[in-house]
Amino acid sequence: MAKELTTREDNYSQWYNDIVTKADLAENSAVRGCMVIKPYGYAIWERMQAALDKMFKDTGHQNAYFPLFIPKSFFSKEASHVEGFAKECAVVTHYRLKNDPDGKGVVVDEQAKLEEELIVRPTSETIIWDTYRSWIQSYRDLPLLINQWANVVRWEMRTRLFLRTAEFLWQEGHTAHATKEEAIAEAEQMLRVYAEFAEEWMALPVLRGVKSANERFAGAVETYCIEAMMQDGKALQAGTSHFLGQNFARAFDVQFLNRENKLDYVWATSWGVSTRLMGALIMTHSDDNGLVLPPKLAPIQVVIVPIYRNDEQYRLTCDKGREIKQQLEAVGIRVKLDDRDTQKPGFKFTEWEFKGVPVRLAIGPRDIEQGTVEIARRDTLTKEFASIDGIASTVQLLLETIQRNLFQKALDFRTANTKPVDSWEEFKEQIEKGGFLLAHWDGTPETEQAIKEETKATIRLIPLETDREPGVCVYSGKPSAGRVVFARAY
Amino acid sequence: MAKELTTREDNYSQWYNDIVTKADLAENSAVRGCMVIKPYGYAIWERMQAALDKMFKDTGHQNAYFPLFIPKSFFSKEASHVEGFAKECAVVTHYRLKNDPDGKGVVVDEQAKLEEELIVRPTSETIIWDTYRSWIQSYRDLPLLINQWANVVRWEMRTRLFLRTAEFLWQEGHTAHATKEEAIAEAEQMLRVYAEFAEEWMALPVLRGVKSANERFAGAVETYCIEAMMQDGKALQAGTSHFLGQNFARAFDVQFLNRENKLDYVWATSWGVSTRLMGALIMTHSDDNGLVLPPKLAPIQVVIVPIYRNDEQYRLTCDKGREIKQQLEAVGIRVKLDDRDTQKPGFKFTEWEFKGVPVRLAIGPRDIEQGTVEIARRDTLTKEFASIDGIASTVQLLLETIQRNLFQKALDFRTANTKPVDSWEEFKEQIEKGGFLLAHWDGTPETEQAIKEETKATIRLIPLETDREPGVCVYSGKPSAGRVVFARAY
Repeated sequence: MAKELTTREDNYSQWYNDIVTKADLAENSAVRGCMVIKPYGYAIWERMQAALDKMFKDTGHQNAYFPLFIPKSFFSKEASHVEGFAKECAVVTHYRLKNDPDGKGVVVDEQAKLEEELIVRPTSETIIWDTYRSWIQSYRDLPLLINQWANVVRWEMRTRLFLRTAEFLWQEGHTAHATKEEAIAEAEQMLRVYAEFAEEWMALPVLRGVKSANERFAGAVETYCIEAMMQDGKALQAGTSHFLGQNFARAFDVQFLNRENKLDYVWATSWGVSTRLMGALIMTHSDDNGLVLPPKLAPIQVVIVPIYRNDEQYRLTCDKGREIKQQLEAVGIRVKLDDRDTQKPGFKFTEWEFKGVPVRLAIGPRDIEQGTVEIARRDTLTKEFASIDGIASTVQLLLETIQRNLFQKALDFRTANTKPVDSWEEFKEQIEKGGFLLAHWDGTPETEQAIKEETKATIRLIPLETDREPGVCVYSGKPSAGRVVFARAY
Repeated sequence: MAKELTTREDNYSQWYNDIVTKADLAENSAVRGCMVIKPYGYAIWERMQAALDKMFKDTGHQNAYFPLFIPKSFFSKEASHVEGFAKECAVVTHYRLKNDPDGKGVVVDEQAKLEEELIVRPTSETIIWDTYRSWIQSYRDLPLLINQWANVVRWEMRTRLFLRTAEFLWQEGHTAHATKEEAIAEAEQMLRVYAEFAEEWMALPVLRGVKSANERFAGAVETYCIEAMMQDGKALQAGTSHFLGQNFARAFDVQFLNRENKLDYVWATSWGVSTRLMGALIMTHSDDNGLVLPPKLAPIQVVIVPIYRNDEQYRLTCDKGREIKQQLEAVGIRVKLDDRDTQKPGFKFTEWEFKGVPVRLAIGPRDIEQGTVEIARRDTLTKEFASIDGIASTVQLLLETIQRNLFQKALDFRTANTKPVDSWEEFKEQIEKGGFLLAHWDGTPETEQAIKEETKATIRLIPLETDREPGVCVYSGKPSAGRVVFARAY
């Protein structure tokens, strides 16, 4: 297939773009900042959706769907929320086109101007809490545990496929509770769900913690997050879960009769992950030969390539390939037999390697005689022969091994690139090398801002563990309650 | 639960709205014409999506995702397409809000005006065919069989929950082919898929045919459709599949090298069904006691209600209920045990009846002694006793019976309300009674238009069968190639 792939060392950012576009995951569209998710990329996203959706339902949530549009006035109701999103909104002002009087196509019909502009949702807290007002009267209506799968729009100026796009796909959970404690427990539960999904399905090790005030979601009291390390040492926020206090209930006047028969405002959480996770998946595991996919999310887990010199061998190896395919499918493995006779095996090897298929089986006439196949692993790029007898369980075990290995490799990388730093000099030196810096911080937004301005590093999270040891802020020298995680981030 | 339901006879339209809102399927939102799909309604839609998605994949299609926004200029490229959609478009003109200088919330930032307005997609032919231009070079790239699940917006002036909303959810297939024959075969195949889905899953009998020119999709050469009859005798278009010829390929310059190594324009189809199907589902089967759901799409197929007078009986009947629930779940039945002790059995009966749960099991202490349960059918409202022994297979068979019965009932209704008419007097008389009229038509748009103006009836479809008998147009007296189906429609 001869696709040119920039190496990571050469240009990490270009390497990423090359993989996304050349492995047919996504591409830029004619609309600035909006991407087209291609079938191969979408098939990965569908697997992520299915796994997450099941985890949400297993924890008692139901799906629903709320409007794409939000009346402009709703936005202003929660002060910090509008502050956070007003600058990046797509605004609908008209509802009709008409023929251009000059005969040049169509123009906006100025007669069809909306009385109140509509915002294309950047997130749905406002429209959902406006709806919840009529759904919640008493503590008996609570908790309300709702999720929606949707598209959202944030008018980003600098976009990158999957990582930062004007339109993206996501899920957003919006729950309502009778007590503060229950809402906090929900926000923490969903953080655990996200962490488990990242680690078990994406083979993506994540740190868990809370955001500093500067990095908090617009409208949240506390933002819980999971953070992952990419191969260039930069951090990527992989999911957030917000405890919203009573902010949105107050803004939209959602009150309920509690068990004591008194009116109180409802407590809220919201939580979301998006197609941004696709970016994390790609950047964590892939190499200079292309995409590397963890088996649990790979649309094709095994590709079978017949090796032949003539028509008879073609029939023979394809027949055996189909036989093996059936055996693997019988135990639930997703298999493709690449029986195209327009391409040579070497081309096919490179193509499927580029597309990140975890396991490749090659079968030639001699293999069939000897009852063996050649098994190649995408993660280690190693090959070995295995008996066709019991091939299904061999491959099953191998897929599990690969899934674990990818996680371990990423974890080892993160461990090797996570360093405690104890002085400002050390901080500035270390941050240039990338990775996570564990440093003491005095807890003030001012210090965080100063550090960001000098080094481009932000506090990725304040670890959740309770046994944090106090110390002295690496920047201000003032007392610190414990180390936090600094990094440059996507 | 004491929910007031208007009867069908009293006010069919109000009866429909009552069911949608009071069975918690959907409600109007704060945004004009946009609905909120509530969890119970969305759970039905999810089952419809899952079944359709599998059928699409089984016929070789892949999912992908294209942008929400379409540049205005794309719209003008296909003349009849823009004609069809320009009058109902949500138009994005700005990408930022700012604080109101007068201190009243936020206003549109006039500095942030888009150079070219963006249309919120009413359908995606234009943006998709613009994308296909770079995906298709040779016949080897064809066919391209792609579907997307998405939200779309058509600024309807008169909206009704599910049936006609400004924003709705749907799937849209967009395929590209090397030959005309292949594209027509694809359009016909997808019509069969839709018909099978409607009949097998929704228990909705449908007629298959093609639209007359007046009713054709804007940009199509031929529109295939399935039409269903609602209980008020009106027709509802339940799905369409379009053969688009080379119209969009020409508009977006999508050419390919064919097998003869000559450049040719690509042949296209598109096909879609939407949340409108929810409206069809509700209106076809429901009665004056509320929603009636076919078992295959019911989120809850069986509800178990314990009958008790004291705490001991409560424990006893709930225990037995849990036992039966497990047995039913073991064979894949979706069951809810309603063990709320805040509500009386009668209330629960009415509530689940209203929500359309196909089967209700009631268990009292005497039932347990005798090893029986009371089984109530939602479709016939009949009750009988059955042995707890073998309850799983009893219920399984009953669910299949109910599914078949709902289909047969709807089919009988359609048959009883489908009449051949042979004179204009008869036509005018019969159309007032509702139902489908099989009448001869001279094949001209003018006659169709005249009939519509006089009677509000349109040609729902021209039947696909090839053995149509010629006759004389019921309106103009001119020759007719065969009877077509007239009806008033949603």
